[in-house]
Amino acid sequence: MPTTEHMQAVVQRYIAALNAADLEAIVALYAPDAQVEDPVGSEPQRGHEAIRAFYARSLAMKLEVALQGAVRAVAGEAAFAFTVTLQQGPRRLVIAPIDHFRFDAEGRITHMRAFFGPDNTRTEG
Amino acid sequence: MPTTEHMQAVVQRYIAALNAADLEAIVALYAPDAQVEDPVGSEPQRGHEAIRAFYARSLAMKLEVALQGAVRAVAGEAAFAFTVTLQQGPRRLVIAPIDHFRFDAEGRITHMRAFFGPDNTRTEG
Repeated sequence: MPTTEHMQAVVQRYIAALNAADLEAIVALYAPDAQVEDPVGSEPQRGHEAIRAFYARSLAMKLEVALQGAVRAVAGEAAFAFTVTLQQGPRRLVIAPIDHFRFDAEGRITHMRAFFGPDNTRTEG
Repeated sequence: MPTTEHMQAVVQRYIAALNAADLEAIVALYAPDAQVEDPVGSEPQRGHEAIRAFYARSLAMKLEVALQGAVRAVAGEAAFAFTVTLQQGPRRLVIAPIDHFRFDAEGRITHMRAFFGPDNTRTEG
């Protein structure tokens, strides 16, 4: 079972890699057969190749990502709230998800699920 | 599939019922065969009888519960951050979980999982 500290560190590395648009750093956090369901209810991306393609599409836009509150890490799983801000011309789109990570014994993410609905997106500016 | 508005309303009723120490109002939000895993990693409580006994133990203390940020509701599931404050003599214990609800077609909670670890609890006062 990965430690609380490890799971918190993975979340911090995930946020930093999104801000740096570091695609390989993101993919490296995932187990080779990991699943990414973003948003919840969509068909999961399975495996590094599909996960890389998924994040490459997201990183085609400049993202500003900020953790909101503490990482909740317990028993090999973590949940955390954050915001993703996208500049769209003079306006900004802000999405506020809660993500759920499940980890394997080596501390890699095996399942990621992103919770956000229509009420968790707003436009500013 | 329950609507976003329904899932948001269930979360609000859950918070209100915890603050009111209204045990039957809490149990009524759950499907008869629901599971409650609180915290994540513990043995789930299964069914209304076990769930009622679980919340009765929690409500033996006076709880102050407050939602933190928006409910993330999507595709029959919801996640939300909140705080639970317990007065312990002159001091206060504050726990800051993220809960995950899964709903059935009738809009009742079938699975509840509460994410919080040692770093999500603090003492004040």
